[in-house]
Amino acid sequence: MAAPAANLKINGERLWDSLMEMAKVGPGVAGGNNRQTLTDEDAQGRALFQSWCEAAGCAMGLDQMGNMFARREGTDPDALPVYVGSHLDTQPTGGKYDGVLGVLGGLEIIRSLNDLGIKTKHPIVVTNWTNEEGTRFAPAMLASGVFAGVHTQDWAYAREDAEGLKLGDELSRIGWRGDEEVGARKMHAMFELHIEQGPILEAEGKQIGVVTHGQGLSWTQVTITGRDSHTGSTPMPMRRNAGLGMARVLEKVEEIAWSHAPHAVGAAGHIDIFPNSRNVIPGKAVFTVDFRSPDLSAIEDMETQMREQAQKICDDMGLGVEFEKVGGFDPVTFDKDCVTAVRNAAERLGYSHMDLISGAGHDACWINRVAPTAMVMCPCVDGLSHNEAEEITRDWARAGADVLFHAVLESAEIVD
Amino acid sequence: MAAPAANLKINGERLWDSLMEMAKVGPGVAGGNNRQTLTDEDAQGRALFQSWCEAAGCAMGLDQMGNMFARREGTDPDALPVYVGSHLDTQPTGGKYDGVLGVLGGLEIIRSLNDLGIKTKHPIVVTNWTNEEGTRFAPAMLASGVFAGVHTQDWAYAREDAEGLKLGDELSRIGWRGDEEVGARKMHAMFELHIEQGPILEAEGKQIGVVTHGQGLSWTQVTITGRDSHTGSTPMPMRRNAGLGMARVLEKVEEIAWSHAPHAVGAAGHIDIFPNSRNVIPGKAVFTVDFRSPDLSAIEDMETQMREQAQKICDDMGLGVEFEKVGGFDPVTFDKDCVTAVRNAAERLGYSHMDLISGAGHDACWINRVAPTAMVMCPCVDGLSHNEAEEITRDWARAGADVLFHAVLESAEIVD
Repeated sequence: MAAPAANLKINGERLWDSLMEMAKVGPGVAGGNNRQTLTDEDAQGRALFQSWCEAAGCAMGLDQMGNMFARREGTDPDALPVYVGSHLDTQPTGGKYDGVLGVLGGLEIIRSLNDLGIKTKHPIVVTNWTNEEGTRFAPAMLASGVFAGVHTQDWAYAREDAEGLKLGDELSRIGWRGDEEVGARKMHAMFELHIEQGPILEAEGKQIGVVTHGQGLSWTQVTITGRDSHTGSTPMPMRRNAGLGMARVLEKVEEIAWSHAPHAVGAAGHIDIFPNSRNVIPGKAVFTVDFRSPDLSAIEDMETQMREQAQKICDDMGLGVEFEKVGGFDPVTFDKDCVTAVRNAAERLGYSHMDLISGAGHDACWINRVAPTAMVMCPCVDGLSHNEAEEITRDWARAGADVLFHAVLESAEIVD
Repeated sequence: MAAPAANLKINGERLWDSLMEMAKVGPGVAGGNNRQTLTDEDAQGRALFQSWCEAAGCAMGLDQMGNMFARREGTDPDALPVYVGSHLDTQPTGGKYDGVLGVLGGLEIIRSLNDLGIKTKHPIVVTNWTNEEGTRFAPAMLASGVFAGVHTQDWAYAREDAEGLKLGDELSRIGWRGDEEVGARKMHAMFELHIEQGPILEAEGKQIGVVTHGQGLSWTQVTITGRDSHTGSTPMPMRRNAGLGMARVLEKVEEIAWSHAPHAVGAAGHIDIFPNSRNVIPGKAVFTVDFRSPDLSAIEDMETQMREQAQKICDDMGLGVEFEKVGGFDPVTFDKDCVTAVRNAAERLGYSHMDLISGAGHDACWINRVAPTAMVMCPCVDGLSHNEAEEITRDWARAGADVLFHAVLESAEIVD
């Protein structure tokens, strides 16, 4: 692959302005965003992105999972496209950059190529993947998972949110259910730019993370069943307190994760108590345990330990317990050539860089199964993400997009 | 006080039929009721009760807290009324008898007096107290508390539910905000019949509980503040997990309650986690700790220990913690003469009985501050309450209402 000249840069100001403009869609309550997948706000964000792509001369594609594809033609009709992108949906209390930087960074590549009058042999396609966050409809990275053949489309359509609404119905309701067969597209390569969502790059003073691997993930929903009863008139020995059982399991989750240090992590972010009344001992607790590690055997071991210890805790307390695997993926090793292209780009542009293992799941982790894939990461302040206070600097955004630009150009091949 | 003849009985079939009829209003999902205070279902239940009282010839009164009063006149214009009643509101997953038995038991007394053509010196007033449960608007026994001067009416009106709706506004919305000054009524005595909501009477094989004391209660809302962050990319040492902090406090609540055995109890029935997303470490946990004991010093000691230990747990974990007292009342000693009237009634009628300490809070606990008061309890199956499976037998209901009938008659004085 031919290396682009080191003076080729994207327009950092324009990229930043677009990020701020998109952040106005589905604003949060604390300066971030609440643009959850398949809400009216998601539809508004999609429409804004499409208007920008069309203004940049792209041809739009939309598949049956709502994945959006903005294509800039190449010179070789037989060359497979180089894909670039991420997701525009956010957490309920999400930030302005998680996912959005990767999509708008891809758009900025197209805009910069147009400015510079550069042609590429391979087409370049900017993608917005549906429901990466998985908050409203579990699991995360759902649509890229269907694209990569990890999930069936019917199963994905049947996912329900907390109100019992189905993903397929909501996709139709907001008007972004396309006709194109999911996964039919073949890719020359795929690159995703994303904020680190962790504290390492900032702590190490590096501008760029060259992502070599992705951490594996396991989500297990635990349902503990006790007995609703009056908090005042039920003697302590006669209680079957599902909330207390949950508390003891949460302590074990913490212990188990620490016992697999340094790379493993574990926590429960989702907790629901029933009937959730001040004077009723909880009869039911439902919560989701999230274990992650770059080592598949560590994930499996943590999950097994959690199930065994939760079963014992509940048996001892006279509680029932059930486990349901609601999400997960194996650790990922990204494509060697694509990773090299990212590292070379950072090197060529003179940005400080280091190799990273991604702690979070990303669409690139699924696409890596069907195309040569790599990721570029930039730091975020305090490693904070999935938080409205999520923040990055203009320089970090610019450097990340420059590296993405060069990696994509090396793969798409500039035509002189 | 003159003792009524032992052959005077209420109509158990009519009482049971009325209980079953009221249970049709605001049905639950599992055979019980969801007729929470100031909902449309509460309004329907109130209208049904009023129609029955008017059919029984009662004059209706309604005060500014929505407390309902159905009056049967006495022969002495100067004699203060004997009050009897409880509440018609229920838990979100409540039973058919908690509160309702005491209100409809009072109505059955009036119907029976009408059947028997009995006149009493003192008027008899059947009361439905607003928001006894305190689930939607904390604290419990709110309107009887305003009546007894424990809370101001303005403070009560400003209580908010989970959606931020104010009690005063909801009372107006359902059309049950009256003009009568709250607490203006003077009482000769007040009697409340209630299911035990505990397992003791059934375990002891007794038909009647003569309630001598009421357990005191303390509700403390605990808010633990950590930091929302990504469950995958935040290393374990850098986490500030409010959910884990909560879990450790819940374990302490259990330990503290056991350390004050046998009469003290403690639990958290209400738990909310924020943002409550599978892949976000909880940044905030809000939960309410409920401690109870017939010994005031034990309650104060448990609450102090909980606050101190929660503070230490949160300090050690880098979490913030705040405490707010959201409800509570001191242990109660009921009126000696009224309690004796209840015990005499059970003796006279030949029902097996024992003295009890009420584990739950009741409207009678507040009214005891402004009038001579006592309670009658009947067993409930497995001591189960605040649960849709709450159940009693027809014989238990009949016996409880018969004892209530005789205690009220001894106080109201039959006119020959």
